[in-house]
Amino acid sequence: MFSIFMHNNITLIGTGLIGASITLALKKNNAAIRVVGIDRDANALLEAKSCGAIDAIGTFDDIAQADIVIIATPVRQMPAIFNALLTHLHANTIIIDVGSTKQDVVTAARATLGAHIRQFVPCHPIAGRERHGPLAADADLFVGKNIVVTPLAENTASALQVVHDMWTLAGANIVEMSPATHDAVFAAVSHLPHMLAFALVDELASRPNAKTLFEHAASGFRDFTRIASSSPEMWRDVALNNRAALLAELDAYLAKATALRNALADGDEASLLALMQRAQTAREQWLSKQFEQFNDVSISEEAK
Amino acid sequence: MFSIFMHNNITLIGTGLIGASITLALKKNNAAIRVVGIDRDANALLEAKSCGAIDAIGTFDDIAQADIVIIATPVRQMPAIFNALLTHLHANTIIIDVGSTKQDVVTAARATLGAHIRQFVPCHPIAGRERHGPLAADADLFVGKNIVVTPLAENTASALQVVHDMWTLAGANIVEMSPATHDAVFAAVSHLPHMLAFALVDELASRPNAKTLFEHAASGFRDFTRIASSSPEMWRDVALNNRAALLAELDAYLAKATALRNALADGDEASLLALMQRAQTAREQWLSKQFEQFNDVSISEEAK
Repeated sequence: MFSIFMHNNITLIGTGLIGASITLALKKNNAAIRVVGIDRDANALLEAKSCGAIDAIGTFDDIAQADIVIIATPVRQMPAIFNALLTHLHANTIIIDVGSTKQDVVTAARATLGAHIRQFVPCHPIAGRERHGPLAADADLFVGKNIVVTPLAENTASALQVVHDMWTLAGANIVEMSPATHDAVFAAVSHLPHMLAFALVDELASRPNAKTLFEHAASGFRDFTRIASSSPEMWRDVALNNRAALLAELDAYLAKATALRNALADGDEASLLALMQRAQTAREQWLSKQFEQFNDVSISEEAK
Repeated sequence: MFSIFMHNNITLIGTGLIGASITLALKKNNAAIRVVGIDRDANALLEAKSCGAIDAIGTFDDIAQADIVIIATPVRQMPAIFNALLTHLHANTIIIDVGSTKQDVVTAARATLGAHIRQFVPCHPIAGRERHGPLAADADLFVGKNIVVTPLAENTASALQVVHDMWTLAGANIVEMSPATHDAVFAAVSHLPHMLAFALVDELASRPNAKTLFEHAASGFRDFTRIASSSPEMWRDVALNNRAALLAELDAYLAKATALRNALADGDEASLLALMQRAQTAREQWLSKQFEQFNDVSISEEAK
């Protein structure tokens, strides 16, 4: 299967954790792949070269030789990158992004890429680590993980096939959904928890007795806040670019947390216990993949 | 050191994760220890016996033969247990609890134990797992972990020494503080995150599209919500028994999360980025134990 992957010249724009992990994964599974790296951060380029994620440091001119361009920057840089790509693209160059938001990226691509839009396949790998930068990259980061692809009506079958083969080479599984469904789902299960974790750490760090608090924080705090070690710039961009969906999630969560707070203030033992029992049961069902236990009205069904 | 631990007859009241882990730890390090277990749940007793955490199933009458009584139940059961203990206590029986709240437990003990209060040493091991029940117990759960002890003015030196030796045998470190400081610190770094995690899982589970959401939840969600797999009864009790401190924490957190929400609604890029950067930096300092970087006004200093 892997021998048919012939798109061996890759330009990687953004050599951080995700970008460097993709090219390490591809190179691990196909020795013929050659990667040129582009990054605004000269140090990141040197680190990406030192760990083997890129073979050479390049410029946008190198895109003329690329079979695949991978855009792995914070999402608010992507409109300018699409624009910078444009003059170097051939008719068969495949372009993917790996942003955590999709409607905004698709809108920017459509506004810029013209006829090349058929070559652009939006992707979001559901994988990450709390560390960032090329030195945190891992060739096995995507093994067994889902990659959400939001195909465009304009995409050619061959572009979709190349992207499918690329992620398969990295060991991942493809899941398709619309950009709008993607943004709604990940606002809830990913963007919201990131905001809540950043808020908790910032709140405790601001206290006069922060030193005492952090000295006694233990494994529960560590795991709850793991995602607050993520890249601030990346997450500022995600929040702003998925603002409507994330605001709806924050409002729903604040209402739920306020209801819990009020149940506690009222000494409402039954409501507190019921909420905790529902949460504990739901999490156990999730862990054991008993998805059939959950409500199942899709967002598109709801909208009818 | 271990050979001097001669308090070998232990009665364990509450044979869940923490209680069973304590007796497994002690028995691993001192083969002479014999444990009698008491629990309202007959199945938990059988499981505790099957995994070796207890040697025999007992009743409160067995407390007359105990050197140490360990109370490891949800905290709102403790007042009744102190009362049930009373008639069986000798003048040298050491009593500890392992509750996650301390002022409430100390108040209940003082109200009940009379002159025996000098034998009661309040403890809170800062260790746990998301699984609960005796089959989740682990003889090494406390190795290298902190045990908060909130000594009472009435405690005898010998009672404190026995408790120190007991936790040392289990591989743990003793940290002393007042019950009030304990409850304020752990409201912030433990009780609050538990409430926030329960609220997130319950919120998402209540959605019409919960199945889709949980199918796409990944490792960030898993770690953020790990503590929502904890025992609902234990955490209902902790919340209600540390209500004032936890309400203050919930209110402070809700204000911070609302500020983040409003910054997002306003498109206030600078505030969002600054919050995330402060949080990310603080968490990195915490992970690398750079506690000197944090504010250091103790709660008692603040109260002056």
